[in-house]
Amino acid sequence: MSDIFQYRLRVYYQDTDAGGIVYHANYLNFAERGRTEALREMGIPHAEMVTRYGIMFVVRQVKIDYQRPARIDDELRVETRVVGLGGASATLRQEIWRDNDSLVVLHVGLACARFADGKAARMPQAWQARLGLALGQE
Amino acid sequence: MSDIFQYRLRVYYQDTDAGGIVYHANYLNFAERGRTEALREMGIPHAEMVTRYGIMFVVRQVKIDYQRPARIDDELRVETRVVGLGGASATLRQEIWRDNDSLVVLHVGLACARFADGKAARMPQAWQARLGLALGQE
Amino acid sequence: MSDIFQYRLRVYYQDTDAGGIVYHANYLNFAERGRTEALREMGIPHAEMVTRYGIMFVVRQVKIDYQRPARIDDELRVETRVVGLGGASATLRQEIWRDNDSLVVLHVGLACARFADGKAARMPQAWQARLGLALGQE
Amino acid sequence: MSDIFQYRLRVYYQDTDAGGIVYHANYLNFAERGRTEALREMGIPHAEMVTRYGIMFVVRQVKIDYQRPARIDDELRVETRVVGLGGASATLRQEIWRDNDSLVVLHVGLACARFADGKAARMPQAWQARLGLALGQE
Repeated sequence: MSDIFQYRLRVYYQDTDAGGIVYHANYLNFAERGRTEALREMGIPHAEMVTRYGIMFVVRQVKIDYQRPARIDDELRVETRVVGLGGASATLRQEIWRDNDSLVVLHVGLACARFADGKAARMPQAWQARLGLALGQE
Repeated sequence: MSDIFQYRLRVYYQDTDAGGIVYHANYLNFAERGRTEALREMGIPHAEMVTRYGIMFVVRQVKIDYQRPARIDDELRVETRVVGLGGASATLRQEIWRDNDSLVVLHVGLACARFADGKAARMPQAWQARLGLALGQE
Repeated sequence: MSDIFQYRLRVYYQDTDAGGIVYHANYLNFAERGRTEALREMGIPHAEMVTRYGIMFVVRQVKIDYQRPARIDDELRVETRVVGLGGASATLRQEIWRDNDSLVVLHVGLACARFADGKAARMPQAWQARLGLALGQE
Repeated sequence: MSDIFQYRLRVYYQDTDAGGIVYHANYLNFAERGRTEALREMGIPHAEMVTRYGIMFVVRQVKIDYQRPARIDDELRVETRVVGLGGASATLRQEIWRDNDSLVVLHVGLACARFADGKAARMPQAWQARLGLALGQE
């Protein structure tokens, strides 16, 4: 079983729109915060990614299903898990919850790219090992 | 053949991130602008939607493929077309271009909801007729 | 002496721009989060504001001084204090810190408005009392 | 008299909040778009700034007065003029209009900084001449 990483946040006016609910694009922001903290907990902090390896993760594909809306003042929980891993890419499943209600599900495809020019790059072995651990590979 | 609606925009600092490229969530903002103008050209302006019918479109699903990054000062073109239509929903395909380079492709699933409480609602017949025309249905 | 309310946050890619630093408008988002939590700690939560009184705070004036830039992964601290109080308005001073470095100082003028139509409104006495306490009035 | 540069935009859901109006921080985004196009019309495009001189403008101070709210679907006009000019800095006055109603007034203090490290820098003479022309200096 893959590890589940949790990140909590609250909804502010800046996240909502005139429909009275969280604007649909802003769940991608919530997901980025949760994903960044999940990677940090796995031992893959942004700082190291760029300064040590000159490599960053870029988003190649996202699929989002909106089930229920979040509203101002809601306390949300972003759950992140690794569900796929390649030599230069990884797939995460992220789910955003309010208590026991699932609001949004995202599948996010990440690829490694060189910071300098954005060209595709292989993933450093240390990262692959850490993502493999989170995925539950032996 | 379905109609193609075009919307042009430029990339500013507010759209970019520290990777030097447009932040991935912001293409959803570009797509919303293009989609809103496409609906307006079809004869479905937001103002009428809410004030006359008490109904709005909400985003139920998005699938985004990122192919090439956009950068500061780029002039982009959002193409929107209707590719699916139901009694309470519609699917749009949107593509974001820089000259002849396709940067991002989105499939956006919209559903009708009552503005007052967000409950699912059937689409007004006049809208369905207009979306049907844009879809190329006879 | 007025009370100081503290709120902590981290900087993500979504907050930065192609200059490699936090985009200047986003400090207003950081300030809103800190201000909302400060008001909540004083006993003035958004939920109560709208549902019980039908009143909200709107921003009437902001003055921002940018001293040093924040960068990706930085851990920031927003300090909020009440520095002025009227029958229908309040002024807050907010300062954003990274460790012992002051990055940004904001003065934010708030006014009470009716949620329904945005018209100016007097502040409920209970709120004025709580803001007065935070201001250090006897 | 200083030149007035005009930029037009429309308000979309992405710009609004659950109060039903444009979120206060987003007027800074509207102002950046208007400012960037004003500088481009003066002959100071971003591309040249960074690639030719390695210099960018950074925002040092903003003062914003909010007079009337903008709403979804509004067509707005951003007027930008140069009102101050120094060897390494410039001050712009920006006003955001809906038809003949003034909604927001901003005073924006810009300073030149080196792109590489953000250190203060003198303004290239060519830019100073162009800003001086827009300011109405002889």
